[in-house]
Amino acid sequence: MSRDPGVPERRGGPQPWPREEFEQRLRERGRAYHVHHPFNLMLNGGQATREQIRGWVANRFYYQINIPLKDAAIIANCAEREVRRRWVQRLLDHDGHGAEPGGIESWLRLAEAVGFARAEVESLQQVVPGVRFAVDAYVNFARRAPWEEGVCASLTELFAPEIHRQRLAGWPVHYPWIDPAGLSYFQSRMSLARRDVEFALALTLERFRTRAAQERALEVLQFKLDVLWQMNDAMALAYGLKS
Amino acid sequence: MSRDPGVPERRGGPQPWPREEFEQRLRERGRAYHVHHPFNLMLNGGQATREQIRGWVANRFYYQINIPLKDAAIIANCAEREVRRRWVQRLLDHDGHGAEPGGIESWLRLAEAVGFARAEVESLQQVVPGVRFAVDAYVNFARRAPWEEGVCASLTELFAPEIHRQRLAGWPVHYPWIDPAGLSYFQSRMSLARRDVEFALALTLERFRTRAAQERALEVLQFKLDVLWQMNDAMALAYGLKS
Repeated sequence: MSRDPGVPERRGGPQPWPREEFEQRLRERGRAYHVHHPFNLMLNGGQATREQIRGWVANRFYYQINIPLKDAAIIANCAEREVRRRWVQRLLDHDGHGAEPGGIESWLRLAEAVGFARAEVESLQQVVPGVRFAVDAYVNFARRAPWEEGVCASLTELFAPEIHRQRLAGWPVHYPWIDPAGLSYFQSRMSLARRDVEFALALTLERFRTRAAQERALEVLQFKLDVLWQMNDAMALAYGLKS
Repeated sequence: MSRDPGVPERRGGPQPWPREEFEQRLRERGRAYHVHHPFNLMLNGGQATREQIRGWVANRFYYQINIPLKDAAIIANCAEREVRRRWVQRLLDHDGHGAEPGGIESWLRLAEAVGFARAEVESLQQVVPGVRFAVDAYVNFARRAPWEEGVCASLTELFAPEIHRQRLAGWPVHYPWIDPAGLSYFQSRMSLARRDVEFALALTLERFRTRAAQERALEVLQFKLDVLWQMNDAMALAYGLKS
């Protein structure tokens, strides 16, 4: 596996950005994070109806159940044992392990807190095609891309703590009909996302070394931002933007 | 995912074998397990030279380092959380987790016990093409086949305890130049293979339900037996059968 996945180095091309500038350019992409999407502004601003909240929970469940497949695909493509040993923690966190119920189970509890029976959400009947296609695109990307690109795509977690913080702060005020115990997923992801992204960011900064590779990393991150944005577009169309 | 992966049920076709008969037919395939291969008979019968032992250890290392990729591929294709939660244990066992060094590390200790520096084995320079192609075929199969077939392919573990038992009993007698501490991989696999195969066998018996699916399961198991046999053919050609 090349240290600069997918992109051959061109002689005489532009110099790579210094590490700090590369990181800054990655972080700047946060302007396209779905925290700024009108559907999320409505949800976290407190203007969503029960049906909009429930639609979001049921559709986002499809993302949640596909995350372990995406992470296993990254591991399946990675010949470096030390990386696999770190990345497998994501599988354990999402699927649960031993006595730990895991993130998918937490999401099912959120689903119950907004009034679903588990089976309704697990049936995936409410998942709209635009959400399904976006999530599937992400999993298929992780299956086929060099594992370093799969790691890079996870960097949207740089921006996740803020969106979870908004939910934890605002939802109990705006949506008192939701049992606050159902929000524990967001609480646990605050710290896990920080821990996970630290490793993924360090790997990305280390492995994408030429300018062409750095530019590819920005494209990959943009692709993942597009996945999340497109999910919100599809939900906005399905459930509307006005309450 | 169909409960009868890859094989549509034909109306009016032969009835499925009863569970006991299906299991018996799977177990009978053990006659083609590489425990019976001339190269293994030589190794475990005590007639191998140092170079033949070392060749086997260095080549089999390529199999060992690919097992986690194969298992991650099965997980990446599996939408059933309960199955993933069980199967991930194989990743933890082979790659190690927390303070546990894992099976690949155990194999490197075996390599040291037969006189290699770690880097020599990790370089993969001694891996012959026939071994590489066979192992790669197995990983690619796991990536592309329905996950149930990946599970079924692991059933060669039904036959593994005996081959490990032979090594543990015979090698210290035949090859006193090998530090016995290096054989701990075989010891640990005795119990882990039994635990792992119990789950894989139960799943195979449960999920391959039609006669056509049962016949497919036998084909899949034969494919995996062929992978292991072909590795031994390639090593026999490379290192010879007479000491």
